[in-house]
Amino acid sequence: MLRALYYPGTGDLLNAINPEGFASALQNSSGVLWVDFGGEDPEPTEDILLETFAFHPLAVDDALHETHVPKVDDWEKYLYIAMHAISFTSGEEDIEGIELDIFLGDNYIVTHHDLPIDALNRVWESCTRDARHFKRGADHVLYKLTDELIVDYMQVVEMLDEEIELVEDEVMDRPNSEIVQRIFTLKRATLHLRRVLSPLREVLNKLARDDYAVIDAKDRVYFRDVYDHLVRLHDISESLRDLVGGVLDTYLSVINNRMNEIMKTLTLITTLFMPISFVAGFFGMNFFQPVSQELIPWTRNPAFIAMMVLVVGTPLGMFAWMRRRRWM
Amino acid sequence: MLRALYYPGTGDLLNAINPEGFASALQNSSGVLWVDFGGEDPEPTEDILLETFAFHPLAVDDALHETHVPKVDDWEKYLYIAMHAISFTSGEEDIEGIELDIFLGDNYIVTHHDLPIDALNRVWESCTRDARHFKRGADHVLYKLTDELIVDYMQVVEMLDEEIELVEDEVMDRPNSEIVQRIFTLKRATLHLRRVLSPLREVLNKLARDDYAVIDAKDRVYFRDVYDHLVRLHDISESLRDLVGGVLDTYLSVINNRMNEIMKTLTLITTLFMPISFVAGFFGMNFFQPVSQELIPWTRNPAFIAMMVLVVGTPLGMFAWMRRRRWM
Amino acid sequence: MLRALYYPGTGDLLNAINPEGFASALQNSSGVLWVDFGGEDPEPTEDILLETFAFHPLAVDDALHETHVPKVDDWEKYLYIAMHAISFTSGEEDIEGIELDIFLGDNYIVTHHDLPIDALNRVWESCTRDARHFKRGADHVLYKLTDELIVDYMQVVEMLDEEIELVEDEVMDRPNSEIVQRIFTLKRATLHLRRVLSPLREVLNKLARDDYAVIDAKDRVYFRDVYDHLVRLHDISESLRDLVGGVLDTYLSVINNRMNEIMKTLTLITTLFMPISFVAGFFGMNFFQPVSQELIPWTRNPAFIAMMVLVVGTPLGMFAWMRRRRWM
Amino acid sequence: MLRALYYPGTGDLLNAINPEGFASALQNSSGVLWVDFGGEDPEPTEDILLETFAFHPLAVDDALHETHVPKVDDWEKYLYIAMHAISFTSGEEDIEGIELDIFLGDNYIVTHHDLPIDALNRVWESCTRDARHFKRGADHVLYKLTDELIVDYMQVVEMLDEEIELVEDEVMDRPNSEIVQRIFTLKRATLHLRRVLSPLREVLNKLARDDYAVIDAKDRVYFRDVYDHLVRLHDISESLRDLVGGVLDTYLSVINNRMNEIMKTLTLITTLFMPISFVAGFFGMNFFQPVSQELIPWTRNPAFIAMMVLVVGTPLGMFAWMRRRRWM
Amino acid sequence: MLRALYYPGTGDLLNAINPEGFASALQNSSGVLWVDFGGEDPEPTEDILLETFAFHPLAVDDALHETHVPKVDDWEKYLYIAMHAISFTSGEEDIEGIELDIFLGDNYIVTHHDLPIDALNRVWESCTRDARHFKRGADHVLYKLTDELIVDYMQVVEMLDEEIELVEDEVMDRPNSEIVQRIFTLKRATLHLRRVLSPLREVLNKLARDDYAVIDAKDRVYFRDVYDHLVRLHDISESLRDLVGGVLDTYLSVINNRMNEIMKTLTLITTLFMPISFVAGFFGMNFFQPVSQELIPWTRNPAFIAMMVLVVGTPLGMFAWMRRRRWM
Repeated sequence: MLRALYYPGTGDLLNAINPEGFASALQNSSGVLWVDFGGEDPEPTEDILLETFAFHPLAVDDALHETHVPKVDDWEKYLYIAMHAISFTSGEEDIEGIELDIFLGDNYIVTHHDLPIDALNRVWESCTRDARHFKRGADHVLYKLTDELIVDYMQVVEMLDEEIELVEDEVMDRPNSEIVQRIFTLKRATLHLRRVLSPLREVLNKLARDDYAVIDAKDRVYFRDVYDHLVRLHDISESLRDLVGGVLDTYLSVINNRMNEIMKTLTLITTLFMPISFVAGFFGMNFFQPVSQELIPWTRNPAFIAMMVLVVGTPLGMFAWMRRRRWM
Repeated sequence: MLRALYYPGTGDLLNAINPEGFASALQNSSGVLWVDFGGEDPEPTEDILLETFAFHPLAVDDALHETHVPKVDDWEKYLYIAMHAISFTSGEEDIEGIELDIFLGDNYIVTHHDLPIDALNRVWESCTRDARHFKRGADHVLYKLTDELIVDYMQVVEMLDEEIELVEDEVMDRPNSEIVQRIFTLKRATLHLRRVLSPLREVLNKLARDDYAVIDAKDRVYFRDVYDHLVRLHDISESLRDLVGGVLDTYLSVINNRMNEIMKTLTLITTLFMPISFVAGFFGMNFFQPVSQELIPWTRNPAFIAMMVLVVGTPLGMFAWMRRRRWM
Repeated sequence: MLRALYYPGTGDLLNAINPEGFASALQNSSGVLWVDFGGEDPEPTEDILLETFAFHPLAVDDALHETHVPKVDDWEKYLYIAMHAISFTSGEEDIEGIELDIFLGDNYIVTHHDLPIDALNRVWESCTRDARHFKRGADHVLYKLTDELIVDYMQVVEMLDEEIELVEDEVMDRPNSEIVQRIFTLKRATLHLRRVLSPLREVLNKLARDDYAVIDAKDRVYFRDVYDHLVRLHDISESLRDLVGGVLDTYLSVINNRMNEIMKTLTLITTLFMPISFVAGFFGMNFFQPVSQELIPWTRNPAFIAMMVLVVGTPLGMFAWMRRRRWM
Repeated sequence: MLRALYYPGTGDLLNAINPEGFASALQNSSGVLWVDFGGEDPEPTEDILLETFAFHPLAVDDALHETHVPKVDDWEKYLYIAMHAISFTSGEEDIEGIELDIFLGDNYIVTHHDLPIDALNRVWESCTRDARHFKRGADHVLYKLTDELIVDYMQVVEMLDEEIELVEDEVMDRPNSEIVQRIFTLKRATLHLRRVLSPLREVLNKLARDDYAVIDAKDRVYFRDVYDHLVRLHDISESLRDLVGGVLDTYLSVINNRMNEIMKTLTLITTLFMPISFVAGFFGMNFFQPVSQELIPWTRNPAFIAMMVLVVGTPLGMFAWMRRRRWM
Repeated sequence: MLRALYYPGTGDLLNAINPEGFASALQNSSGVLWVDFGGEDPEPTEDILLETFAFHPLAVDDALHETHVPKVDDWEKYLYIAMHAISFTSGEEDIEGIELDIFLGDNYIVTHHDLPIDALNRVWESCTRDARHFKRGADHVLYKLTDELIVDYMQVVEMLDEEIELVEDEVMDRPNSEIVQRIFTLKRATLHLRRVLSPLREVLNKLARDDYAVIDAKDRVYFRDVYDHLVRLHDISESLRDLVGGVLDTYLSVINNRMNEIMKTLTLITTLFMPISFVAGFFGMNFFQPVSQELIPWTRNPAFIAMMVLVVGTPLGMFAWMRRRRWM
């Protein structure tokens, strides 16, 4: 899908401009043109970028055929900027970066992406309704775009935060093996988030501080604002990583404690019953059978009394000993 | 709550100045004005900041609507400074940063915060009582503010230190699963503290070293003093983190040792009683029953004597063997 | 095997040039000569490099006799570049770097390697078919070479990624001790990959940014492109390392959980049966034998009833108690 | 305790100079004055420092009322240097830093400390005996001081090293839970040492490299010498940290191995005796009782022979099986 | 042992020059003098260094009395270089650094070491045989020295590599507690190696890049060559460290797995035999004794049949249940 918005400098915004009209629009230094290629078939796109816009073949190759870590390349008359929009599937905690390639010139901005990007659509619609953004120049449209991208990042960070809190509570209440899986998924999501945020922050830092021909010096303050948001997001994502690490440690400690409890019970039962089982077995041998025909009642049998003393006394002694060692 | 203090350069401090009076106060370059917005409704605040003080919309947006990592933005005629006051709930070891937004101009300082900040109130009161701070300029009021903020940080650090010592003793005396929870809470608190301190230290470093129009060059030495305190606080907070890490390691070692002890007991009991239980069972079979009518007394029965030798000898042998392997 | 390609500036590419012809080719500043030494016997190679090309003895020594971390040495009239091609044996996850030594002059490029390198052969063949690469200068041939080397790296990264996914699934389904071995092999492979990528990235960074006499300033953009690919590869290899680390942690957690399950069963069985075994042993002693001649049926024997109550009641009680502690 | 040494440039050293004489001593640019405040009551000290020496109030505040990480503050006419002397209580492995505040001027040095410092006393005595140090200037006295401080650090490092070796041997011979405590104490001591050494090294680095008015350029080589010692000390303290970490790992491995041994024994005993106990129990049931009046001798009873085969054969089989799995 | 080699610029090498001759040799700017002090008594050495060579007392103190991390000190007319030769005792994996102090002047090189150094002896002998090294200047002798030192490092690295491979195989085949000891020794050796290599690399980096009066600018390329070797050695030593870490992790996993196996067996045996032991005990009570005089054969006794069903059925059921849970 190829679409374009054109503000000729005065009057109304035109949204029905076709590729043939781009060249004349580029001549008008007081207008602003925004062309958006969304999941377009690469060939015609390539032709437009190479011929109408006269971008360097390497830059076009970067934009159409390859994936990149976010970066800014300064080609003097225009900037090539690679960014990542974020897409988050809640159930699976799967963070995906959608590459957004941007060419920013003096009086135009070209965007290219293979998958639809919500943030870009929101900016497109707001620009269609209101020409004010275009009046402030192509770099201001870029600012709106980055600003909206960050909104999505913020949402993802908040969802992750909630999810981590949920898992944290569950770890304390009912630790189970399925929760390990979720912790590791969250850990990977925070790692992924951090890896996407770091270079993006660097890109905004460059836009805010470096001297680019196509960015108005007094507009840099807007990019600094977006940069500050990214610094904070990065900071929060670091906290999330620590939180997830803490959840995993807690889980292991809880499991470890439970193991300890179980072993204590095993040892307690064994310690209490094994000696008296032996006692019962010992006195159960036929040697203690009253073999004489004159029977004595078992309640007066000295062997029986000795046995009863052992059966009652041994576990009591064992228990007292374990108590003193603070096991119970 | 909006409140203001105004020192016109000579004479007494005025504390009943209303928003309408701000504009004329700003004209007086030898006076000092302090306006404090505390949890104010954003709309009227925004108007005052944008119109009376003529701050940049982005800076006002930063101050009123958003949260930030501590930072300094230089807007030439004024500085925008974001800081965090610290608030600590002792029982829960919950460290919270309260954002404090500061605009520092040549002859004014504007503070904004959503929650009440103790340190700020202390400075306010001391300024109300004593105009000396105002006489030394708006940047000196900022110095007093940062200095008092650090006092609170120091208190939190001391409380954490004591809490860690308490937990450390308890880990040695009676390790239990509830203590893991506390260790992790403390760990998170130290992490949080460190995360708040690092950018704040950076802010003070900038105030102490960079060349800002609104900070008198010879007053920078005061900010360097605050900065040195923050360096030391950061250093202590690093130590706290190591201490908490050490407590966790100790806990795990203690638990591990206890587990070891328990397993040793289990093995000891099993090793001592299982063989003799078998012996008792073996001789308890009816094969050894004196089937002939002529009964021999069990004390002379060779099977009984063999059994007794085994019952006494086996555990002794086992015990000697374990001793030699240094298990006991 | 020594082979050479020579483009004299005009006309056809010559591929039958022998060592004696190198010297005259070097005189022709508008031609481009590529000489490739593959696993050649060092002596004659050394002579050619030292005498015909007049390289510094140290540089030749580096190229022929020693292995190096990827690096660029600037010898003014030529560059000595050490790189590593990657070779990956899939079954064993064994990553091996094959050293490729390159001398780049104004109008020649000399390559030396002890083992055959697929990427180099691909470039050689493409150059044989098409003189265009030579027309753009010796540095462009170097660009093609580095670009093809990266293709192989990318493939290795993809194979590692798939392998890790396979192991990850297996860890969840059927963890076994053999899988530990595979995880550690993968871990070592990712470590190795990262160690090879880092200095190679640095080499490309230098080629893209530094001012070398033999690299045309406007060709640097091509090396920057390769550099960007390496940045991304490095980024992915970091992710792989995290993934492998995650797989190992998952494995340990799964094993830990299983251990926990096993101990629970052991404790359950012991807790249920040890007490009732004692009961059976206790009532199995001869004291409870009906010694009088008048026999009472066992179904009415009070000792038997007491015994049955204990045998049925004890395990039920134990089980209820463990249930309440959430062990089952 | 306030004490002072004064060398008027020619003649003898005076050690009975009182505070009133400081002012005139400071006028004499060819003399050297050393004033030492040891655990002095702050008020009179403060007056002397503020009025006689005219130090900045912030610097005096730093010296008298506050603790600091080692640092150098350049106040143009003098340096304020905060250092830490080390104090080590051998039995408790407790490393304590004693703050030493130094003001270094052109012709004076002022030291302040709350607790007695051995190294300082040693320098004081050597200076009393021998005016040579004073003849080389106030900065040379500072050099002697730092040099002596390092001697104490070196001693502490050596004591720690010996202690670690002792613990290491004990871990191998008889690991016990009390040793964990000692390992953690040593770990904390090495951490503490490292934390004290790092900023101190930085201070000496500054003294050796920065251009301070009060330090003679050609005396910097002496501070570089002290700095080199600190680099080495830091290096050793890193090694100590690794050693302690290794001791802890060894302890855990030894404990783990021992646990393994114990579990093997438990399993061995259980595996050998549980089956034959069952066999004894099985044949102990009354069903196998020779109920006919015609008795057969038990040596020929086929049930007895079957039982004996099982009792002897089962453990042998079990043992062979475990052997084959390499458990024993 | 004091020995000297002197090349007077022309003619033959003199090796019988005595300390008195040093002074005149130093006057001859076209000659090269090498003096080597090996484990010499410090006093006479000190005199020669201080008086004949006129080295700074601090530099002489560094060389004779103290140990240092490798470093280069520039004393304008000469360099003081501290290096470490490596000595490795194979059986004990004990890496020891032998300090080698070098003074490099324009026309002399002075070496000092307390223990014999093989690499130095090799260079000495090769210089004795062949004056060529001396003809290229004192800095070339230094290059030969560093180059030979590296050869020893390389050998140590290779021995460590082989040792690690041996241990790795043994961990898989027969893990035992003695192997932990060896792994930790290897770990310490790699740590030690890395600690020695890092500053040495830095020294060579300085010699290769910094502008020292006594090193000929065009000879720097030789030091860069040695530096490149050290970079690679450092790289390999990092790999060794990772390998040792991997071996330790593998050992722990193998031990963990074995523990798991043992616990499974324990649980299996207990689960199979404990229930049937109870059954045997239960039916072994006298209640089931055929008390009537009319005896029924035990093969038809319903109690016996019920017992046999339980004894055979219970373990089969247990085993099936464990199978389903994938424990076996």
